Order: sequence, then structure tokens, then C-alpha cells
Amino acid sequence: MKRLLGILILVLPAATVLAEEGMWTLDHFPTTQIQETYGVKIDDAWLARVQRATTRIEGGCTGSFVSPDGLVLTNSHCVVGCVSQISSAENNVEEEGFLAKNRSEEVQCESEQLSTLVETEDITAQVMDAIEGKGEVEANEIRKQTLTRLEQACEEASTGRSTGKLSCERVSLYNGGQYFLYKYKRYDDVRLVFFPEWPIAVFGGDPDNFNFPRYCLDMSFLRAYENGEPAKTPDYLTWRAEGAKEGELVFVSGHPGATERQLTVAELKTLRDVSLPHYLMRYAELRGRYIQYGKTGEEPYRIVHEPLLRTENGIKVRRNELRALLDDELFARKIAEENRLREAVAADPKLEARYGSAWDEIAAAEAAYLTFRDEYLFLEAAVAFNGSLFNYARSLVRAAEERQKPNEDRLREYTEAALPQLRQRTLANRPIYPDLEELRLSYSLDKLREYLGPDSPYVKKVLGQVSPDTLAHALVAGTRLGDAGYREKLWDGGLAAIGASQDPMILFARKIDPDARAYRKRYEDEVEAPEQQASERIAEARFAIEGTSNYPDATFTLRVSFGSVKGWEEKGEMVTPFTTVGGIFPRVTGDDPFRLPASWLEAKPRLDPDTRFNFVSTTDITGGNSGSPIIDRQGNLVGLAFDGNIHAIAGAYWFDESVNRTVSVHPAVMLEALEKVYKADHLIEELSAK
Amino acid sequence: MKRLLGILILVLPAATVLAEEGMWTLDHFPTTQIQETYGVKIDDAWLARVQRATTRIEGGCTGSFVSPDGLVLTNSHCVVGCVSQISSAENNVEEEGFLAKNRSEEVQCESEQLSTLVETEDITAQVMDAIEGKGEVEANEIRKQTLTRLEQACEEASTGRSTGKLSCERVSLYNGGQYFLYKYKRYDDVRLVFFPEWPIAVFGGDPDNFNFPRYCLDMSFLRAYENGEPAKTPDYLTWRAEGAKEGELVFVSGHPGATERQLTVAELKTLRDVSLPHYLMRYAELRGRYIQYGKTGEEPYRIVHEPLLRTENGIKVRRNELRALLDDELFARKIAEENRLREAVAADPKLEARYGSAWDEIAAAEAAYLTFRDEYLFLEAAVAFNGSLFNYARSLVRAAEERQKPNEDRLREYTEAALPQLRQRTLANRPIYPDLEELRLSYSLDKLREYLGPDSPYVKKVLGQVSPDTLAHALVAGTRLGDAGYREKLWDGGLAAIGASQDPMILFARKIDPDARAYRKRYEDEVEAPEQQASERIAEARFAIEGTSNYPDATFTLRVSFGSVKGWEEKGEMVTPFTTVGGIFPRVTGDDPFRLPASWLEAKPRLDPDTRFNFVSTTDITGGNSGSPIIDRQGNLVGLAFDGNIHAIAGAYWFDESVNRTVSVHPAVMLEALEKVYKADHLIEELSAK
Repeated sequence: MKRLLGILILVLPAATVLAEEGMWTLDHFPTTQIQETYGVKIDDAWLARVQRATTRIEGGCTGSFVSPDGLVLTNSHCVVGCVSQISSAENNVEEEGFLAKNRSEEVQCESEQLSTLVETEDITAQVMDAIEGKGEVEANEIRKQTLTRLEQACEEASTGRSTGKLSCERVSLYNGGQYFLYKYKRYDDVRLVFFPEWPIAVFGGDPDNFNFPRYCLDMSFLRAYENGEPAKTPDYLTWRAEGAKEGELVFVSGHPGATERQLTVAELKTLRDVSLPHYLMRYAELRGRYIQYGKTGEEPYRIVHEPLLRTENGIKVRRNELRALLDDELFARKIAEENRLREAVAADPKLEARYGSAWDEIAAAEAAYLTFRDEYLFLEAAVAFNGSLFNYARSLVRAAEERQKPNEDRLREYTEAALPQLRQRTLANRPIYPDLEELRLSYSLDKLREYLGPDSPYVKKVLGQVSPDTLAHALVAGTRLGDAGYREKLWDGGLAAIGASQDPMILFARKIDPDARAYRKRYEDEVEAPEQQASERIAEARFAIEGTSNYPDATFTLRVSFGSVKGWEEKGEMVTPFTTVGGIFPRVTGDDPFRLPASWLEAKPRLDPDTRFNFVSTTDITGGNSGSPIIDRQGNLVGLAFDGNIHAIAGAYWFDESVNRTVSVHPAVMLEALEKVYKADHLIEELSAK
Repeated sequence: MKRLLGILILVLPAATVLAEEGMWTLDHFPTTQIQETYGVKIDDAWLARVQRATTRIEGGCTGSFVSPDGLVLTNSHCVVGCVSQISSAENNVEEEGFLAKNRSEEVQCESEQLSTLVETEDITAQVMDAIEGKGEVEANEIRKQTLTRLEQACEEASTGRSTGKLSCERVSLYNGGQYFLYKYKRYDDVRLVFFPEWPIAVFGGDPDNFNFPRYCLDMSFLRAYENGEPAKTPDYLTWRAEGAKEGELVFVSGHPGATERQLTVAELKTLRDVSLPHYLMRYAELRGRYIQYGKTGEEPYRIVHEPLLRTENGIKVRRNELRALLDDELFARKIAEENRLREAVAADPKLEARYGSAWDEIAAAEAAYLTFRDEYLFLEAAVAFNGSLFNYARSLVRAAEERQKPNEDRLREYTEAALPQLRQRTLANRPIYPDLEELRLSYSLDKLREYLGPDSPYVKKVLGQVSPDTLAHALVAGTRLGDAGYREKLWDGGLAAIGASQDPMILFARKIDPDARAYRKRYEDEVEAPEQQASERIAEARFAIEGTSNYPDATFTLRVSFGSVKGWEEKGEMVTPFTTVGGIFPRVTGDDPFRLPASWLEAKPRLDPDTRFNFVSTTDITGGNSGSPIIDRQGNLVGLAFDGNIHAIAGAYWFDESVNRTVSVHPAVMLEALEKVYKADHLIEELSAK
């Protein structure tokens, strides 16, 4: 009782950015704050070099250039998707690891791309002018059209530049408070250079994921190529082998994917009460299906490994996000913060007239959303159609239709700016495992029926008179979409080829597309449009009252965080910030996920047990920062971020400096392993190039 | 925002029992209310006859006597556990159904027992006298000892009676407001008479579970035996084949298992924020493992069927319980009710001194519980050790130890009153499927590691240096506990036999028992003791303020609900209260769970499509009422309850008469099927006996 009432009587001091909170854009970096706290001056040259040395891995990670020849350091878990594509029963690269002895042995990751930010352009004024005075639904249309047009113009203008053609991407910061074009140099030819055996890369597996102390060699190397040659990357990071000292100021540069720190209480409540519990139930079942499937043989165990890893990671993240939102005291802080802003708005009649209703409008849109959320998710977000084969079908069907339309009128993911990436991903040659596809599709069709109910017209339309198993089998066994050549024919053949195709998965995707699109339209008009307009107004209100001293929510765009190497207190005991090589061996059981590869067992006598392995820092990161370099004040590489501790997951909603930690691989263990375990002298030499 | 604040500003009218709410004890039946509402006088003779005609199925259901020779009508889903025990790959009784052509063909369900309530005795005064003035931990011990002593005395006193020896059970009503001894006539020899094919019994399976319109022939017959002969049951229910009319008053007699309508807000919050989400995540994964295992062959599909059904049912129930607790408005009603009671207590200094702190004490105990809940659940509640083989080991190890102690000092489940049932269940001969046992144990050991973390001392103690898979395989492959004869030897051999056993599962159960018992002790002292004492005081406060006009929470003891045959409004449309036989055929797909058995397809031309199939009523029931007879004012059987609609699940916390419905099998379809599908003329004849 008391605890529940606590939600409303707890009043907190005015919002202040905690000392080391923040995923900062580079044009808005808190240099003054850092100078005051640490006595360290970060100048524009430092920021510019870090920007050019950082790259985005389009699969959802970060990397950094660590040699002048396009060598990219990132995490193994960022590369495992590529590795699973070049892996087979005969050549199990995940299990055996990979080391190209020279450049000719480097293998292309067909679906992978890298993007390095070249410059940004503020287009807030253009967007706001375009939608001025429009109703929310019309504004939503115009906003998108304007952004598509500006993207296209940006790409066309860049073709003649010295940088080469740039890819231009719309970016919304502060939930619509600002609009930018981010202009990237893109590398389409990315090759695998080094991947350690998976058991040492993710030692401890799901049980240790988000935990610390930790012992993961979660490192890999890729290389960016241009015109068939290693890319020239003069702004690379040099290594400081001894790493940073305890208490030392460090930075993380990277692409945090998404945080939700500026959501309204109504939006957080939807997450807490509906979205997160539903996600967890659905994916816990999928996890169970994957695990049991993996027990049916060596090959199933191998092929299910990577999707299982992703599923377990997603569950762990969302389980702890839910736990965070169920923490009454922290939720109370959110309510108090929102109330404070609303009261400040209400205190000024001009602000109140302009912004006062925004929060209630979002709450109303959330309530509207809940009336058709399941249909939207299962049909349009394709939660009912889990698997690569349906994804191919959807992309091919829609790309053919959308390409007929003027660029401005297309769905976002089929605009000219987005198509090259989509095409590359759709046509990349990678193995398709029919059993796994059937498992995924049957499972998700079963959830469709469970969530919408057997009497839903959509369930009847999708399943007809058959079971999820039967339909999944018919579609997977009948389709030719597993063949990259066939996909290319359909892509290039456009609407005529799609219309003529009798492929069952294509026919299936076409059958459900009108309903899916209808729910998308409804979502855009009834949820996105009012929420976008209300969010823009809340952002403006925040700027009006708090100024622009804050940082925007993460949007998978370049940010730099800062903090220091530091442990934390857990259940009354201090966790020291470093682990060492000697600590891993008592943890080894011989069974997954606490198993060492043969190379490590063999090298054990040669390894220095005092070599630092993993470490933690107070830097503020989130998913998407995987593979980020940890950088010292001189701009040297002093670590490789690969995880947060368990408290970092609540960072989706708030940053708690006392316990939120980044977990990184130490440079010492990386160099020790390259030298003594993998005998990769040529890479060590490349890393040492000046 | 608005919705959230709603929790606190919503003020509700004073608590009133809704017209048809309530699971009433028979000595406290609202005859006046019924007479006023329906003009029907229910007399003591009616109640006494209904009591004797109702029986409890110890597996967790209800049944009713429907002939003078011990014939019991209940649900198929209450009998499927027994059916799965007599079923095999060669003789798939679930798939084929079962019909004993005569009494010699009736097959014993070895682990099943029936109990019919003979009388009750109020022992509140004895219990309260014994604990008067004691501290909460001491009171908790003495309370249990007193109840054990009273039970034992009751059983000893009953041996000379005309009814034969009675089984005496302690019962706490109103969460400790009253204590009773319930005295049962027990039938240990229960035999299967009729079981229709599973596909028609649970037509629609999980997708239709808790839904309506519905088409399930969820009926079976058992027979109680005494001394090898059919039991004499002169108080049986006669059938009214045409059933009850729409709007007609009906009653449900049965054993609702557990409701939580009188929990405090703090306790509901633990359910909402911790217990239910964790349960759902754990069991969703188990469900996925079961489903995928069932796809590995016909025999796995068969043997996993029954545990999968139970798991899916549990998930659906708890998912909707969670949804109910996440309904802000309904939760606000709970808060308002509690506040109203607390304010009434606070208004009277004498009441305040005696009861005022009880709610905070429960909240404090809940908070304490959450600090060790995972250890308690996984170790003592054996969530880490899923499977029959560990259950056997735990029961054998503890029974041997506990039987050494004086009856009063034993754990509740090993007292003299409880031992006969435990022994029967432990020694019953039933098939053990090693693959399934391994799946369950490996899964739950994996969850142990996930929830407690790999660094937990208990995880290290349980797993040592091996994986959940390896340990589960070693234990299941090595144990002889699947052999009922071996279990009997260990049971009868007592402590010496257990001490000498080198069976790995016995050794394993012994190894973890001290830790498990320590957490039980901690739970009893830190959670149960203060909550029990506080609950008793809240119950007293409620009696003092509201009188005893309310009904107690369900406790798997005999209750009668009343209501009427009535549809409800769902999303703006009225759901009619009856379905008919003609409605099932358009729903058939040929695939599970919408598949008809051959017998029904064959009989289709002979069936009257207008025969009523399933129907709904406003009666207030919950799990444990499965198999309950629906009875009219004359005491005739007019239906067989087997489910609630989806809104009935929220009945765990509150009853909403506008939408909460009982779902029952209509007598017309039962007789139609017995005659035209199963040609069970001898049963129809027995049912018609006067």
C-alpha cells in the first residue's frame, strides 16, 4: 500500500543530467562539463578524428578503423551473422574460428555494409515550414514526403563531391525536436579477417550475458574494401596496450540504437503493461522451440545457434527492461519529471496553449493503438510470419509495387535512399535451412492464432482450413526464394515478374499484403501522426523551459559518451573493474557455454595469467554500441565495448551512474590472444603501423 | 498520465456483493438472497443432497454421482491424467477413447482418489486459544501443531462410526478468519468407465480454451469402488435431458481451488510485478520445448500431449490473471476497498490498536520474501527439479525422515492425515518416459542457473562442473525410481533404505534437501508467520466491520454458486448462451486441434444438428470446479461445467457479473453422443435408473 502510494508522493529535485550520463552528438558535446570535472580539454580535432575512425555496421553494431588499410575492430557477436552465412556442417567456422593469413583469404560478408559519418545538416526549419498549420494526419504525410525529397536531393548533390557519392539519411533527434540529414560514406564490400572460436568469444553464454566479472574475447576484425582494394582509412585508432587505469577518463564512440528516456508516462505504461510482457511470452516460447530443436542433432545444434543467441539476448534485455519499469521508485521519478515539465508549461499561458495538451494526445493515441495493436504487429510488423523466406517475399512484393510510385509517395523503406541497402540484403547469397524456416513460420502462425483468436477474419484468411504446421510446411517446401538467383530475377523483373510468379510464398505475401498495409495506414494515421506531432511539441516545450543542454535519445546515429573505469557496489560488495586471464580457467566446465576451444587449452601454459581480460566503465551506452572503441583522452584505443552489466539495461529509460556499467574487452588480452593463441603476427604488425 | 492518476482519484461505492457473486459454503448459503431475487426457496434437504452427490477428485477436480452404483460424471480433462497412465504407443486410449462394456472392463486409475464431504466442524476457538498472546513465529508453529493434533484426533474418533473411517482435513476460511475440520469419506479405488476421444473432448484445444462459442464433449465417467464392489451412492443426481432454459436459475456444486479476492494490495502487487511475469516466462519456454519435442515423432507427440495441455492451460490462466491485475480501474477498486476497510479500522481506536498495522506487516513480509523468493521457489518448491522422478525422490527422502518425528512436528504434507494419499500417489504404477523426464529436468536446471545466476552457491552445488543437460541425463538414466516396486521398497524400508540407497536421484534429493528445508524454514518464519497472523487480524477486522455476510476465498473445499443461463455482450455484440451440434462441423479443419474423431464423422448423418452442445451461465466458479454438476432448483443435473470464458479468469481477483461466465457441456449432447456415437446403451440405462 505504502509502496504503491509512493508513486505519487515522491517528489524529486529538478531534472539534472547526472555527471556521466549522456549519449552526446558531436556537435553538442559537453566539453565544458568534462573540462570542469576532469580537467581535460576535448577539442574539435579530437572529435573529428574519432568521428572518422568510427564506423557503423549496418547489421546493428559499431566498429572502429584500427589500421590505415580499412581494418575494422568490432565484436565477434556483431560478425556471427556473417560467420553463420559462410559456415556449414563441413566447415563449421563458428566452432573453429577464422583467420585470413593474408588479404586474399579474406571472405566477403555479402549482406554487410559499413557507414562512416561524413557530415550532418540541420533541416529542422525546412520540415517545420512544410507542416506548419497542417492537421496531424496531413502533417504526417507531408513530413515524410519532405524528408524523402531532402534525402534524395542530398544524395544527388553529393555525387560530384571529392568524398564520392554519399548516402543521406533522415534523422530525428529529441523525438522530433530536430531533423537532420546524416551523410555517410558507405562500404558495400566488407570482408571477414578474424573471428575467434565462438566458445571463447561468448564464454559464459546466456548465463553470463550482461553479467560481470566476465571473460569474453568478443573481438573480430573485418576489412572495408573499395573497388576491390582495401579502403584507405588514414584516421584510424592506435592501440594503448596497457589500457586505461582505474578511475581514468574514457570515451565511447558509437551508434547506440534506441533509448526511450524521453517517452511520456503513457508510452512507458504501454511498454510495461502490454508490449514487454507479450514480447517476453512469445520469445520465451520460441527460445524453448529453438533449444529443443537444437537437441535433435549436430547440424540442428549448429544452425540454431545464432538465432537462439539473438533470441536469448532479446529476452534478457526485455526482461530487465520490464523489471526496471516495474520499479515503483524509478517509475515515480518519470512521473515526477513529466509532471514538473507539464506544470512549467501550465504556468505560462502561451506555452500552455501551444503545448499543454500534447501529453494527453499521446495517451489517447496509445489507447487507440491498443485496440488494434495485435493485428498491426502480427500482420504489418510480420510477427505472424517469422523467417527469412517470408521477409524475402515481403521485400520483393513491396519493392516491385513501391518502385512504381514517385519516390515521395513510397513507404519509407523503399525510397531511393533506402533501396540499395535493401537490395543488397535481399539478394545476398546465404544458406537457408528449411527445417529452421518451418519451425519459425509454424511457431509464428501459431501465435497469430493464439493472439488474434481462431475466429479472427485474418486468422481464417491466413490459415484457411489447415494448421500452422501444415501451412508452414507447404510454403517452405514449395518456395524457391531460398535461391538468391531466383530472388534476383524477381527483384529485377519488378511488378511483371511478381505478378507472374506462382511461387507459394510470393502468392502468400501478396494475399495478406492489402490487410497488412491497411493496418499500417491505420497505425500511421491514428498513432504515429498524433504522437509525432505531440512529441515535436513536447520537445519544443522542453527546449523552451530547459534549453538545449540535454542530449537526445539514441537513434543509431553517432554519439560519444564519457565516464571512467570504475567498479560498483553489488549487494554490499564492491565489484572490481578488471578481470584477468587467470580467472577464466576455474570457470571452465567443459560443457557449453563454459567450454574453452582447443586453441586456448593448448596455449594456456604460455598465457600470462595477470593479463587484463574484461573491464567496466561508467560510460552510458546501449545496444548498437556493441563493437564501439573505448578511447582515452589522447584518442588511443583502450578497449572494445561488447556489453553492459545487468543494470545497464534499465538505461533504456534512465541512467543510474552508481550501477550502470559498460563491459569491454581489454586491449591487453586482445593482443595476448592474437600473439600467443592465434599466432596472427601479420595482424599485430598491421595494428602497430604508424 | 490521466489513466495512471486514475488509480488514486477513482472512489468507488461501498463494497457490495454483486447479485450472483460468490462461492458459498453450505452452512452459510444465501438462501434469503436467492429467495428474494428468484423466488426460489433452497432448503437444507436440497443442500444436504447436493453435498452427498458431489465428490472431490483429488487430482484437482469435481465430480458428481449420477447413479446409485457409484458412477461419477466429470470432465475428460479431469481424467486425462489417468488415461495417459493406461495409454501406450500400442493402445493409444487418448486417441481412441475408452468405453467399458461392462463393469469387469472398468480400469483402475491407480493414483486417483475421490472424497465426499460428510461433515464439518468449527475449530476456530481451539486454534485461537492455542496461539493467544504468542509471537508470530511461535504462533505459526503452534497453529500448525494444533491443527495436526486436531486432525489426528478427528480421524481416530471416526473409526468406530457408521460412515466408516473418515479423512479429516484442516481448512482455513477467510484467510485465517475461521478454522474448520472437513471430514471426508474417501474412495481409493476409482475406475475409468468412459472417455471419449480426446479430439472431441477438447475440440478447439488451446486456441478455444476459455473461449465461447464452444463445442467440447468434455465428459467422462469414473466409478467409485469399495471393497472391490461399485460403491453405493443413493444420493445421486438425475438428468434433465432438455437442460435449463435461458434465464433459468442454476447452481454449481464443486470444489473451486483457489481465489485471491481477499489478498491485500501488497500481495496482489507481488503477483502482478513478479510472480505472474516470471511464471509466464518460464512456462512459455517449457511450452516451446514440449511442442518441439512433440514434433520428433508419433510417440513423443503422444506422450507430451498431456503435460503440454496442462502447461498451455496454466499459461492462458496466468496470462489473463496478469492482464486483469494490469487493469488500472479494477486495481483501483482493490485499492479503494482496502482503503475503506483501513479507514473504518482507523476510525475506531480499539480496532486500530488491534488491527491497524496488519496491512503494513503483510507488505513488509512481501518485501522480505522478494529478497529470497527465487531460492525458495527453485530449491524448496522444486521449480529447479521439474519431473516425476525428482518428485518421487523428494517424497521418499522426506517421508522417511518425517515419519521418524512425532506427528505434530512433521511438515504438513507428511502428517498422518496426509500420508495415505501421498503413499498412494507415490507408489501408483504409471509409465515414466525417460526422454520427457530429461527434457523437464534439463529445462528446469537451466532455469535455476538463469534465475539464480551461475555464481550462486546453490547453482554451483547442484550443477558442479556440468551442464543442465549432462546432469539431467545422468540422473534420469541412472535412477531406478521409474520402477514402482523399487519405490515401494524404499517407502517401506524407511530411513534405513533411503540411507543405504545409491540411486543417483535419491542421492541428489538428499544433497539439496538441507538447503531446501532451510529456505522453507525461512519462508515460514519470515513470510508465512507474519502474513498468517496479519491475515487473521484482517479477517477479524472485516467481520467486526462488515459482519459475516460475505463468502470466503476458494480453498478446494465444497462450495455452491448460483446464477442463471445467460449470454453476455462482447465488443458490442451479444453472445448467445447455447451452441448446437450443427455448429461444430464448419469449424472442423482435419488438423489438430480442430479435428473430429472417426466416430463423429461416421455418426454425423444420425446426429440432430439442433441438439444443444455447450452453454454459459453467470455462476461464479474457478479452477477445481471442472467436472462440477450444474443443478436446477429441483436438484436435477442440467449441465457439466468444464471451463470459464476468458473473463472468468479475472475471477481470481474479482467477479464481474456482466461478463464472467461458466462454460458447460449440455446434457442433451452428452445423451445424444452416448446413444448415437458411442452406442453406450448400458450407461444410458444406468443414468435413467430411478
